[in-house]
Amino acid sequence: MNRSTSLRVRLPVFVLVLEVVIIALYAAFVTYDDNANAKFQTNETNPMENSVYRDYPYFADVQVMIFIGFGCLLAFFRFYGFSGMVFNFLTATFSIQWAIVIQGFFQFNYGGKIHLGVINLLYAEFACAVVTYLFWSRAWEDESRSAPGHGFAGDPYLFCDRVGWVTFVLYRPSLNKGHAKEITSYSSDILSVMGTLFLWVFWPSFNSALTIKGDDQHRAILHTFIGLSSSTITAFALSAVFNKRGKLTMADVQNVTLAGGVTVGASVDMMISPVAAYALGVMGCTACFFGYKYLTPFMAQHLRIQDQCGIHNLHGLTGLISSIAGICAIILATEETYGPSMYQIFSHRAPPEGDPKLLELQKLIPGLKPGLGRTGQEQALYQVAAIFSTIAAASVGGLLTGFVMKLSFMASPSDEDCFDDELFFDMPDDFNSVEFKMPM
Amino acid sequence: MNRSTSLRVRLPVFVLVLEVVIIALYAAFVTYDDNANAKFQTNETNPMENSVYRDYPYFADVQVMIFIGFGCLLAFFRFYGFSGMVFNFLTATFSIQWAIVIQGFFQFNYGGKIHLGVINLLYAEFACAVVTYLFWSRAWEDESRSAPGHGFAGDPYLFCDRVGWVTFVLYRPSLNKGHAKEITSYSSDILSVMGTLFLWVFWPSFNSALTIKGDDQHRAILHTFIGLSSSTITAFALSAVFNKRGKLTMADVQNVTLAGGVTVGASVDMMISPVAAYALGVMGCTACFFGYKYLTPFMAQHLRIQDQCGIHNLHGLTGLISSIAGICAIILATEETYGPSMYQIFSHRAPPEGDPKLLELQKLIPGLKPGLGRTGQEQALYQVAAIFSTIAAASVGGLLTGFVMKLSFMASPSDEDCFDDELFFDMPDDFNSVEFKMPM
Amino acid sequence: MNRSTSLRVRLPVFVLVLEVVIIALYAAFVTYDDNANAKFQTNETNPMENSVYRDYPYFADVQVMIFIGFGCLLAFFRFYGFSGMVFNFLTATFSIQWAIVIQGFFQFNYGGKIHLGVINLLYAEFACAVVTYLFWSRAWEDESRSAPGHGFAGDPYLFCDRVGWVTFVLYRPSLNKGHAKEITSYSSDILSVMGTLFLWVFWPSFNSALTIKGDDQHRAILHTFIGLSSSTITAFALSAVFNKRGKLTMADVQNVTLAGGVTVGASVDMMISPVAAYALGVMGCTACFFGYKYLTPFMAQHLRIQDQCGIHNLHGLTGLISSIAGICAIILATEETYGPSMYQIFSHRAPPEGDPKLLELQKLIPGLKPGLGRTGQEQALYQVAAIFSTIAAASVGGLLTGFVMKLSFMASPSDEDCFDDELFFDMPDDFNSVEFKMPM
Repeated sequence: MNRSTSLRVRLPVFVLVLEVVIIALYAAFVTYDDNANAKFQTNETNPMENSVYRDYPYFADVQVMIFIGFGCLLAFFRFYGFSGMVFNFLTATFSIQWAIVIQGFFQFNYGGKIHLGVINLLYAEFACAVVTYLFWSRAWEDESRSAPGHGFAGDPYLFCDRVGWVTFVLYRPSLNKGHAKEITSYSSDILSVMGTLFLWVFWPSFNSALTIKGDDQHRAILHTFIGLSSSTITAFALSAVFNKRGKLTMADVQNVTLAGGVTVGASVDMMISPVAAYALGVMGCTACFFGYKYLTPFMAQHLRIQDQCGIHNLHGLTGLISSIAGICAIILATEETYGPSMYQIFSHRAPPEGDPKLLELQKLIPGLKPGLGRTGQEQALYQVAAIFSTIAAASVGGLLTGFVMKLSFMASPSDEDCFDDELFFDMPDDFNSVEFKMPM
Repeated sequence: MNRSTSLRVRLPVFVLVLEVVIIALYAAFVTYDDNANAKFQTNETNPMENSVYRDYPYFADVQVMIFIGFGCLLAFFRFYGFSGMVFNFLTATFSIQWAIVIQGFFQFNYGGKIHLGVINLLYAEFACAVVTYLFWSRAWEDESRSAPGHGFAGDPYLFCDRVGWVTFVLYRPSLNKGHAKEITSYSSDILSVMGTLFLWVFWPSFNSALTIKGDDQHRAILHTFIGLSSSTITAFALSAVFNKRGKLTMADVQNVTLAGGVTVGASVDMMISPVAAYALGVMGCTACFFGYKYLTPFMAQHLRIQDQCGIHNLHGLTGLISSIAGICAIILATEETYGPSMYQIFSHRAPPEGDPKLLELQKLIPGLKPGLGRTGQEQALYQVAAIFSTIAAASVGGLLTGFVMKLSFMASPSDEDCFDDELFFDMPDDFNSVEFKMPM
Repeated sequence: MNRSTSLRVRLPVFVLVLEVVIIALYAAFVTYDDNANAKFQTNETNPMENSVYRDYPYFADVQVMIFIGFGCLLAFFRFYGFSGMVFNFLTATFSIQWAIVIQGFFQFNYGGKIHLGVINLLYAEFACAVVTYLFWSRAWEDESRSAPGHGFAGDPYLFCDRVGWVTFVLYRPSLNKGHAKEITSYSSDILSVMGTLFLWVFWPSFNSALTIKGDDQHRAILHTFIGLSSSTITAFALSAVFNKRGKLTMADVQNVTLAGGVTVGASVDMMISPVAAYALGVMGCTACFFGYKYLTPFMAQHLRIQDQCGIHNLHGLTGLISSIAGICAIILATEETYGPSMYQIFSHRAPPEGDPKLLELQKLIPGLKPGLGRTGQEQALYQVAAIFSTIAAASVGGLLTGFVMKLSFMASPSDEDCFDDELFFDMPDDFNSVEFKMPM
């Protein structure tokens, strides 16, 4: 009944404005990608030449992750299941729409028109995860500082990586302060594990969706699977060993198992060898577990950083490991390991225009574009620079987001109403009829 | 214990008869499609030439929609979850089997034999949705009148469209009459939202499964995603603004969000432009919401039409918008927009045999078949005619179905036993142990 | 609190040892498959030549089956949902890791190195199902005797088949002895049906993942779908007719419906005709249902075989039917039906080196390898021999597994603690707060 949380005016006005703006922008700027345009295709001749067949299966898998995986995972609170699933649905939909336009201007802009294909939707879904995360975490002041080596650094794998840990960070807000409704129930925990399993199953698609096709994508799938796999058994072991009674904690099963998918992110398509992917999974999981267990309470008490989402701990550390691994992989990349295709993966390392080696390579790889002739070390340095500029960009973005959210544009609930579906939904009659003992 | 609802005799006899008939028909008439026949394929040479690789991914997605998406969505009643999921499973399986044979005779009949491939299964799954819907809605008398512009009109998109709204219509029967067991529970609502999310995620596969491959399929995916997306945020806005306390209603989240997938149906593979898909999503969602809110009660009171499924309102209106959009798209189609491939999409518009323009076009598109040389306006008129004949066919079909269902072939429950799993299932012990307050 | 079931030492030590061993083995022996190796691929030239595009979609579907399908299905006990889902997750992950190494040595060993690609993961997931099953069933002594005609007999379809029924066997342990906590709840039954539906939907991918590509895979998909479909309606009919009150039993819906997927297994890619697949589904389902209903209690009382998983009955019978069908299909295979590609499917039937017929066939199928010139009858005999040697191997393997499990390596719960999540998990507060009436 709390007037200040009513969605009656705010939400519809917001949606109406958005829709008018989007319709205007779409009408003025959005057209079809050549692959989706009847004019530039004689469609039945060779369907497999249309890019949709390369991108759509991965897009569908990422859809399952965002809408079903996260939706279920976020429904882990006893009294907050509707909100978890439904607001994930709303914010994901909204932010994908928005990302299509924003990214279109920067990435798919040809002659003043945004060219729309399935690949745009895929990029937008990656961006969406970032927005969703911001909406959920409200830890914007901290977010920028907690991103040591991630973000839209230009290279798809880093972009992918950022999203990896950003989305990962979504769940389990407010674990280190007590709230009577911050409890799970038997069925909400099971639902949340289902979400974890959907994320686990499709994470290889997520990490490989934006890589170069062919052997690169193949490696991305292999590394992600191996990393998740070693991460999972490590999470079970750590959960049991640090529990006083030797039992498993569902929060670990739901979250820490996925850390490996993040840690392999920054080097996911490189020739790092299967054993490195396995080790990265173990390391990432361990860092995530201890960050979660020790760093979060420490920072809350001593650094006065209220890190409700455990971003610093869970994902800062995981991300840091991932970035360092990525930089090592860049330094160690040689033509001996990669063959000529090294100059496709690291396009700036290709010989510059006019270099006789370029012509030689172009005999092997016809479409190879001239690069800047960088060495591995130089490339790694640029990578480090890209990481720092990402941190800077994330800081600015984070502060702006925080500012917008502070404008009380959103219907922010009072403290005692937190984690309660009743605030935003007409509830079924059994919602409060089952009694629950309060924790501890 | 109610003798009249026992499945003990009816169901087994029905299944036995069906199985004998199907086995006889299969033995006599069903053989493999050339693409699935070892005799006409030397299988390892080029796997990608086998049609299974074009159709199977879409088939798998539609399977998820029908069996899991609808199954979950239909489990929204507190006391009717088993029935929702399990009878959806049974009727879908049964009707797909049947549709394989029926459609085989009409569509895949070569030399007196039904040629079976994955594409047959895909068509059968589309048909299945219609049957499922009839089984569920029992609103057969009305159904025919509520189909202004849908049906198996020959063109795949119209067919697809019909199924789109038909399947959409499945859920939320009996909303405008009161029944003590017509209540949801916290967990049944969450399950139902999961169903919605599965439908949402794979709807692009559904709408694009039967289009021409290549850029047509690409556009179908894009339009469906965009339409669903704008429809979703509109549904949230409308749900909040028309709720007295500014809260969200789960039924809107579960149903109205999907309206956009229906509205784009009839023009899903045409060059309607992304902005039109966005606008269609908004319009469809709005029509669906208001039909649901105002038209259903009005008709129940004043026209004595007991429209338990809200077909007229929810889907008649959505379907009408979709059809009008389809006709507009047909009228506006020009060679300038589509290039020569227009004559593939609208095959009757291709120049007739002997026309010199045909030879010219065949240089661009080698396999182009001669058409009837129709103009866009003529094509649109034929479309309108097709729509009316569909309504006629749907009327006859609807009446026949109604007649069959009135034969008390089905174990129809008495009114007070409606919405109660106990009628058809051996129930676990906790089924009635949790007390529920009755709604208002 | 029971010390003997604490996971605190055992699980972490076990995981640590495993990880050290795996890291050592990976470092020494595992490298990339040529298709995933940058050195042997110039990646962008033709992405579709990379095997990942043939295997990954099927791999993803099998992942959904193993992690989500089984996970949900196994959560059918009221007090054992966490264990069902979570231990399935752990054991599947662990055994896939292990299988990658073990199978790598035998199947993907080239020059002393295991070559890793998506196909290895796919094989490992199939093997995983066997391990999971052993972990769950603890019916190892019986297992070997219950495998009349299955196992890793060399031919992919038999391998596939074995896994089919083995995985199928996973659920519903301990149905014929009474235990107070062996009860389901309304929501656990619904979750379990969801698991069944995921298995149902993706079973065609499962059965066709390891067949030869092209028309073989196409047939495998068709047969599995048809077999599951006829099996499903038969299961409903049998469930109703053998229930005293004509109601449906959820355990039948959850398990017996899937029998058809097993029965078509051994002949899934052969030219058995669609009607045979339909009939196999009906037969398999019937055998499974009656084995479950009558054979299990009979054997428990008279043969003193405590078959908690119903392996003999449910799956021995189903498997027997599948094997006999497979042998019939082998005997009946002729060049007239299969065309020259018969010599690819049954490679030992190809003419031997030097036979002029081989040269003739190689004109039709360029890559055809010389075989042993076996007749259909000879091939069938070898098949029978393979089956018996499989039984022998399964016996040895089963005894060894039983020996290992008896070493009390696992934290085996006492009898009264069975089927209780509280033993292994920190439970949410509502776990025991809802009262349940005990069954009869």
